[in-house]
Parts: sequence; structure tokens; C-alpha cells
Amino acid sequence: MTAITAIRAHDVRFPTSLDRDGSDAMNKDADYSAAYVVLETDAPGLGGYGLTFTIGRGNDLVTESARQWALPLVGRDVDDLCRDPGSVYRELAADSQLRWLGPEKGVVHLAFAAVMNAVWDLVARRAGKPLWRLLTEMTPEELVAATDFRYLTDVLTPAEALAMLREMEPTRQLRIERLHRRGGYPCYTTSAGWLGYDDDKLRRRLKEAMDAGYRHVKMKVGQDIDDDIRRLSIAREVIGPDVNLMIDANQVWDVPQAIEWVHRLSEFRPLWIEEPTSPDDVLGHAAIRAAVAPIGVATGEHGMNRVLFKQMFQASALDYCQLDSARLASVNEILAVYLMAKKFDVPVCPHAGGVGLCEMVQHLSVFDYVAVSGSLDSRVTEYVDHLHEHFADPCIVVDGHYVPPERPGYSTQMIERSVAEFTYPGGSYWRSRLPAQSSGTS
Amino acid sequence: MTAITAIRAHDVRFPTSLDRDGSDAMNKDADYSAAYVVLETDAPGLGGYGLTFTIGRGNDLVTESARQWALPLVGRDVDDLCRDPGSVYRELAADSQLRWLGPEKGVVHLAFAAVMNAVWDLVARRAGKPLWRLLTEMTPEELVAATDFRYLTDVLTPAEALAMLREMEPTRQLRIERLHRRGGYPCYTTSAGWLGYDDDKLRRRLKEAMDAGYRHVKMKVGQDIDDDIRRLSIAREVIGPDVNLMIDANQVWDVPQAIEWVHRLSEFRPLWIEEPTSPDDVLGHAAIRAAVAPIGVATGEHGMNRVLFKQMFQASALDYCQLDSARLASVNEILAVYLMAKKFDVPVCPHAGGVGLCEMVQHLSVFDYVAVSGSLDSRVTEYVDHLHEHFADPCIVVDGHYVPPERPGYSTQMIERSVAEFTYPGGSYWRSRLPAQSSGTS
Repeated sequence: MTAITAIRAHDVRFPTSLDRDGSDAMNKDADYSAAYVVLETDAPGLGGYGLTFTIGRGNDLVTESARQWALPLVGRDVDDLCRDPGSVYRELAADSQLRWLGPEKGVVHLAFAAVMNAVWDLVARRAGKPLWRLLTEMTPEELVAATDFRYLTDVLTPAEALAMLREMEPTRQLRIERLHRRGGYPCYTTSAGWLGYDDDKLRRRLKEAMDAGYRHVKMKVGQDIDDDIRRLSIAREVIGPDVNLMIDANQVWDVPQAIEWVHRLSEFRPLWIEEPTSPDDVLGHAAIRAAVAPIGVATGEHGMNRVLFKQMFQASALDYCQLDSARLASVNEILAVYLMAKKFDVPVCPHAGGVGLCEMVQHLSVFDYVAVSGSLDSRVTEYVDHLHEHFADPCIVVDGHYVPPERPGYSTQMIERSVAEFTYPGGSYWRSRLPAQSSGTS
Repeated sequence: MTAITAIRAHDVRFPTSLDRDGSDAMNKDADYSAAYVVLETDAPGLGGYGLTFTIGRGNDLVTESARQWALPLVGRDVDDLCRDPGSVYRELAADSQLRWLGPEKGVVHLAFAAVMNAVWDLVARRAGKPLWRLLTEMTPEELVAATDFRYLTDVLTPAEALAMLREMEPTRQLRIERLHRRGGYPCYTTSAGWLGYDDDKLRRRLKEAMDAGYRHVKMKVGQDIDDDIRRLSIAREVIGPDVNLMIDANQVWDVPQAIEWVHRLSEFRPLWIEEPTSPDDVLGHAAIRAAVAPIGVATGEHGMNRVLFKQMFQASALDYCQLDSARLASVNEILAVYLMAKKFDVPVCPHAGGVGLCEMVQHLSVFDYVAVSGSLDSRVTEYVDHLHEHFADPCIVVDGHYVPPERPGYSTQMIERSVAEFTYPGGSYWRSRLPAQSSGTS
């Protein structure tokens, strides 16, 4: 038997706030971070690597929580676990003491995502396949068995899900070939429009995006209406009238303010307004959507769990579902969201950027197209060009498309040298820069 | 100047799982715990004491998060802080790196609640008043300034809140006198109906509750329908047809199952079904409520933040709002929920039990009656008779009423000897009982 012999959890933080990469109206000084989990096994060269994403302080809490979630995995038979990842998920999720801390949201849910992402990476590595291929080779029955339907059966039953997956099954191979022919899965870039960039840098980054083949660019808004008007004018000037322009407020508005602000930016014809208000506000998003149409409403990177997405779909609150691969509890919960999105005919355009999110969402997007939605209409997955150098199998984007990865796993393995350098606070990068600890606390 | 000189955060856990106190269909082995925060000052005898409640594992994460939230308070002028607790709240809440971990939910929000509960305790102690009196002596303008309206202005503006509070202001004293005359604020007991109790113990505890003057009792349900029918039959036999019987499923059902199960228990005429499904499912609660009327729907102990409650009110999902004093971020966020409940005419019956929750909710319920709702109709606050011996100023319940506390503060100070004994894992109680640490982790 091949067993999980140990687990490691690392608090890894990158000092992105220095360059204001990632800056927006809510998050001005993000240090992009990962709670990174490694499942070690006694098979040579075999491990499972998973993570979740945070923006700095508190990443220690998520890391420690991930360690606690993963503890029961030590000693487990890897092949048992590969045969039925759904039962591992359900067994861990049933810890009622940890559940109390959410339930299914916040620190413990992020940490659970990191652990289950590592499990899915291990499953794919054990099979010698990239995760998207493993998933597209699973039968509808196996996919349904892996899906978390708890609290969803009023809108989606396992039987309905099975029927939807079976309908797409005979044509899966066709779509895999089509994706390869068209150069991969379409993506858009957020790298141009961070709020902390000055106008020159903005103009330059937008031109670079056009030269790189992108047909969608996203701009941060919501801090100052006059700045937004000036920056969006520059954007339209550089990208022209036909390229899609998305805007993202990162939750800074109340509902009435969101409606008013978006109306004032409507002359720039944004494709969507992203995160106009609290990510928890289903009814608020529905009200905003009704008021700003035909501008679409997008949200999901802070969508805490499948129950939130269920209601977003029920309330017709979304034009674009931006699920997050590291906030939802891995494939098991993400499957449920993809299946509901299919039923409600809402395109899923996953959130990415961050640390390792691009590496993960490329697998999910390909899987969705091949096995669930069968469509690329209105679908475009986020891409941000930073921090990929810390991954052993970084995503590859060519001409605005994610090229489907071919190496085994979920592409979530970090380079050990990067982990050692950026582990907080003991890694070599931080050790030399952090002030001595303050006193007055216990 | 009087300054905050240090903060302490303690992981305190009580071994309640040994007696199956607190057992229900979701939580079978709860070890009632508190992340307990102490703000020390340089004024003799003056401190601020606050907590949040968990059920065991993970309480270390909440404690550490509370320590991190509280750090910026060290060195602060106590009187500055007392003058405007709203600005302290807003300043701490603006930490965007910690916000990312929720936002405003889960571990970081529980921890923020513990810290701000300590701040409000300090404010009341500095004023030499019990918190309920401090709050009922604040002007409508001061209360509005302390309230967190973010994301709520589509349903409640500060101006509306001000008008509601002003309307009740002239008659506040009248209601304080009325409360004292009637012996305090009405409560109900959950101590009788834990799922882990056998039928004899259930019968005995129900009789004791009747003898103690309660007119409401609550029973746990949802594990096995036949057990539920047998246990509720016993309950009706002991309490008779007129005493109010509430049932609580602790989130175990999906929406269709909740409706079916409650219909099967309707012969016992429950006043409300509590937590029939996921606490996040606003639309699910609305559907259940429509289907099981006239049985009421109650939820809120896992209501993660004010945005969730806003939607519960908007969607007419609730007959009883059971806000939690340690899950919402203290008085600042609780004020918003009370004000919205008033606008939507939903009675607030706070969740209690746990560790220290009864101590807190007595203040909140009195404040609500005196300054916000002005009504006792359909209002009854939870009471559970355990763990009060660990508090310096434990709540007093006589004839089914919380007697308004008279000592300064929020009644949240724990006895130092209890903290020392039950601190996890180093306290004397746990040190002798815990196994040696397991290996295989880092």
C-alpha cells in the first residue's frame, strides 16, 4: 500500500504591495499569499500539493487551520483516497467542531479548500494525468459521487446532474479536439488596470495587452468617480470601441451607490460590473443587475460556498459566475456550482490572479467546456501575469488563451526554493526585512 | 491619560462533551469554548473583557485572530475610545488583509466580535454602568454613530434609524420601570431537550423547567423522525397543551426535507422550527416559511453578519431573528440588526447558551425593549443553565426572566481561576488529560 506519511503546511507570502500590483478600491496593500499544503507519501516522487490564496495578514491562521484539517489524512491509503475523493471530502467536512467556525466559510473553509486541492492534485498525479483530463475521463456517475449536493437539492438533485453530464458525455472528445485546435481556453487580463498604476503605466500596460492578443481587459474602479472617468477614457482610447472592457469595484459600494456609479460609467460600455457590493448580498446583486442592464453583473471571487451561488442563480442576480478555485472547497464543491450554472444557463468565468489561481482555473475551465457546459459563449477566464515563476508547472498563455496543461496534477506544486524564501516570517526574504517583534501582547 | 497597556487572548475550553450537554443533530460532541480577550489598562481595577463562543477545535485560531485584531489597541487612550466606539470599530474593520479572510464572516469575524465585545465592556466599566444602561442612556445620534450601516442603506438609512430611535426616546424610562416591575426580560430554556439525553432525563428536565416557571421549552430534533415523534410526545405530555414548544434542527436538512419533516411534527404544534437548513440560505428559509406556516421559522445563531440578516428581512424568511452576540461584530453590528428588525417588524429573540452568551444577551434584550422595539410581543430570549459559574457577574434568571444586571460592564469577565484551569492545552484541567502530541506533522 502507498500511504500518506506526513503533511506540511506553509505560510508563504510575496511582497506584492511594494509595487502596488493587485491594488484596488478595497485592497490597497495586498501581499499576495498562499497557505500551501503538501501531502507526502511513501511512493518515490509522489505527493499532493494544494493551496488557498489570501492577501497577507491572517495567512498564518489559514495555514494552521489547513494543518488541522489535513491531520486525519496521515496514514491513509492513497489508492483508497483516489477511488473516492468524495468520501474523503465528506468525512473531513463532518467535523462539527471545525464546522462551527463557519459553517463552510471564512478561514476554515479556505483552509479546507487548500487541503482538498492537495487531495485532488494527488489523485491526478497518481493517475499520471493533468486534473482536467482526469475529470473529463470520469464517468457521470463518478462525477456525481464526487459532488457536494448538501443544501442544494431544492434546485439540483443528483439525478438531474447525472442527466446533464450524460447528455454531454458522447461529445467530450470532440470538444477536447476543438480546444486544442483553437489554441486553448480564452482568457482576459487584469494586469493592466490596477488602481495604483499611474496613467502612463496604465496606457502602456493596455497597449501590451492588445499586442498580446487579448480581446478583454479589466479595470479597477470605485475609489473616485472622476479618476474612473479619466482612466476609462484612456482605456477606450487605447483599446478602441470593440474590445471588451470590464470594470471591477471590489465591493466598495452600497446598493444605491453602485447603481448610480455604474450609470455614470455606462458611456464606456462595460461588459460587466464586477463585485459592485458585498459578496454576500444576493438580493442586492439582483437589484443592481435589474438597474444597470444591459451592463452585466459579475461576482464570485468572495462567493463563500455553494449555498451562496445557489441563491445567486435562483435570484437571477448574476450574468457571470466568477467562482474561486481556492475559496470554494475544491473540485467537490466547484462541481456543484458548475452544474447549477449549467442548469440556470449562467456562464462561469472563474476568478484568477492571486497565487496559483491561474494554474488551477485552467483545469476547471477546460473541464467545464468539455464535460458540463459544452459552450464557450460569453466565457472568458481571468489571467494575471505575476508570480507564476514560483510554480513547478506554471500556466502557459498564448494569444489570450490558456494552453491546456499536460503534466500530471492540478499545477499547484510550488518550487521548494520559493517556499523557503517567502515563508513568513522565517523565510530568507522576510527574515532580513521584518522589524523586531513588538511587545505588550501575550 | 488612561491607556490600554496590554492585551491578552486566551483559548478557554470546557469539556462539555463528557455529559452530552449541548448535543444536537449536527453537533454531537461539543466542547463549549471561548476565545477570551482582556484589554488591560493603567487605571487600577479597570479592564475590558470580551469573548466569542466556539465548540472546541479551532478555538485556537479564533484566539490568535483576536490577538491580532486587538494589537492596534495597545497604547490607546481609553477615554478617546469611550467617546466614539464606532470609530474604533470602523478603523479596525478597515484592515483589508484581514477582511479578505471573510469578508466579515467565519474565524476573523468571530475574533473581531470578541475584541469589540471587550471594547464595549471597557466602555461600560469606564462609565460605571451595566452595558444595557449605558446603551439606553446614549442619544439616538450617538447610537446611530455607533452603528455599522455599510451595505445596508438600500433598506435602512442612518436618517431612518435616527427617526425610529427618536420616536422611542421619550418613553425609555417608562419601559425600564415596567421591566423591573415584571421581574426582568422573559426567557426560555434549552437545557431540557438536548438530543443526547435519554427519555427519563428528558422528562425530568422538562418537569424542572415547568417548576422553574418557564412558559417556553425547546427540543432538539432532526436526527431520526421516530425519535423526534416519541420525544415530542413526552414533551407535550409533561408540559401540557399551552406551554410553547420550540424545535431546533441545527441545520441538518435540505429545503425539501425540512418541509416534509416539519409537516410530520406539526401535530405537536411547535411555535417555531429553528435552523431548518443552511444558515446562509435566505431563499431556502423563505421557501420553508411559506410551506410550514403557521409554524414559525427561526434562525440566526449562525447568521454571519448584518448583510445576511438584511436579506432574511427583505425576503420575509424569518418569524424570529436569533442574532448571536458573539458572531456578529459586537454592539456596532448588532445595533444594525435590531434596527432593521424593527423596520421589518420581526421580533428578535437572541441566541444564547454557549459560554457567556446568556451574560451578554440579557443586556441586548433589555436595550432592544427600552430603546428600539419597545415591545415584548413574541419575544423571548434563550437561556441555558450551564457554565455561568465561570463568570464574575453571572446572569440571574428568576421565574423565567433575566433580571437586569446592575454591575458595570457587559458581564463578560471570566473568573481568572477558571481561565487558568480551562485554558487549552496548558491549563490544569487539560494538561492532565491530553495525550502526548502526535507526530507526522509540521
